[in-house]
Amino acid sequence: MQRTGLLKQVYQTKSNLCVGLDTDPARVPKHLADNYQKPLLAFNQSIIAATAPYCIAYKINTAFYEALGSQGWELMEATIQSIPAGKFVIADAKRGDIGNTAAQYARAFFELLNFDAITLSPYMGRDAILPFLDYPDKAVIVLALTSNDSASDFQYLTINDRPMYQQVLAEASTWADQEKLMFVVGATKAEELKTIRGIYPHHSLLVPGIGSQGGSLEAVMQHGLGPDLALMVNVSRDILYQSSEVDFAEAAGSQAASYQHTMQKFL
Amino acid sequence: MQRTGLLKQVYQTKSNLCVGLDTDPARVPKHLADNYQKPLLAFNQSIIAATAPYCIAYKINTAFYEALGSQGWELMEATIQSIPAGKFVIADAKRGDIGNTAAQYARAFFELLNFDAITLSPYMGRDAILPFLDYPDKAVIVLALTSNDSASDFQYLTINDRPMYQQVLAEASTWADQEKLMFVVGATKAEELKTIRGIYPHHSLLVPGIGSQGGSLEAVMQHGLGPDLALMVNVSRDILYQSSEVDFAEAAGSQAASYQHTMQKFL
Repeated sequence: MQRTGLLKQVYQTKSNLCVGLDTDPARVPKHLADNYQKPLLAFNQSIIAATAPYCIAYKINTAFYEALGSQGWELMEATIQSIPAGKFVIADAKRGDIGNTAAQYARAFFELLNFDAITLSPYMGRDAILPFLDYPDKAVIVLALTSNDSASDFQYLTINDRPMYQQVLAEASTWADQEKLMFVVGATKAEELKTIRGIYPHHSLLVPGIGSQGGSLEAVMQHGLGPDLALMVNVSRDILYQSSEVDFAEAAGSQAASYQHTMQKFL
Repeated sequence: MQRTGLLKQVYQTKSNLCVGLDTDPARVPKHLADNYQKPLLAFNQSIIAATAPYCIAYKINTAFYEALGSQGWELMEATIQSIPAGKFVIADAKRGDIGNTAAQYARAFFELLNFDAITLSPYMGRDAILPFLDYPDKAVIVLALTSNDSASDFQYLTINDRPMYQQVLAEASTWADQEKLMFVVGATKAEELKTIRGIYPHHSLLVPGIGSQGGSLEAVMQHGLGPDLALMVNVSRDILYQSSEVDFAEAAGSQAASYQHTMQKFL
């Protein structure tokens, strides 16, 4: 599934919400360990069931799963299988390596794990991206402007009379069409999001940084939607950890519904 | 183990060779599957035993292990445990994400897997690197100039009157001292290696691109060693796949010995 399937979800769900499954064992409700053999999977499945009516996509942050070793890899597999058909499933992996290595990553995330899309770092250029584009039904999401403070270390420096992140956008947009190529733009950079949307009206954007990182949802919706509504606004911690008690899934669902409610006003 | 331990290996082994364990099931000798329950582990262990006298470091390319799913993660764990004490063990993971995510990657690679060092992408700036520097006995290896053709898509573009890779070197070298911070510089860029060594005489460099990628060992040794001999020259495919028959380990050992023999002339 690529852009077309994603946009269908936006229309059906009246939402641009992507729920980020940054599942941290230290923050998962304690009672799950008493009642489930696989408490982290139970957590993910409960969160998915509670939030699915309000979101278009799920994003799995691979770091949180790799920190659990081989069991984390199994958790990732089982979690993906628990996501309802039609939702856009993103590996937030930020990989980037030479061609023969990139082909192995593509096999891992697109064949074994069956993600719909993966986030990739542009630093090594197109070699690191092209092997992922060989999969006809998959998409890549290239890091352009990230949500963290030190994005400014490099991404704002001037290349060819424009900030580096704009150079990345310009170069990467030649690698594939907008059906298969998307961009990450941080929610904490609302002005730049407006600029980027002006230059790239039709590309799908994945926007992290709402919630715990402090980005404004209203600003993101206003500047990021564009004419095609091709926008995914990711929220992770602010949905997952609303409650650490037995009502955690209900609380997560309510928070997701609240985001969806705000988003709907802009659609 | 950091730079000090690495340099001790260089002096003891009279080598700068890093063996890259890019273990590809499609290229592992067929007879191993008939004789071992875990043929890939048997392959890695045989390669390690045959090459250990001639190398200072092993580099595990995480893509090849992730392409095997959760079993690949177990293979990575078991492989690391098979590497003799004193060798520098590198996760070639090229990760890079915001602080709370980077902390999870650091836990995965430094705590669970006990690597000595990890390769990291600079695109997101220092936030993506600092959590790894909190580990006193570990090192990070930041991508500066990579060995692939499309390194030129971004790394050679001009920022502040110098190529981007030099801007990355200048900025990243302020994040930690040379005991904990190292750089990746591709062997296919011999002239640039000379320039970089001139500016950073004491930093440890990890140089991939010898062998299958076509870099010249002699040029790398001549330009990359520097006054401290703080150099790791990685070879993967050209050692691992010298033979696909029962003599594969012997052939790999001979090839590693040949590299070591050439390197010794420069030391």
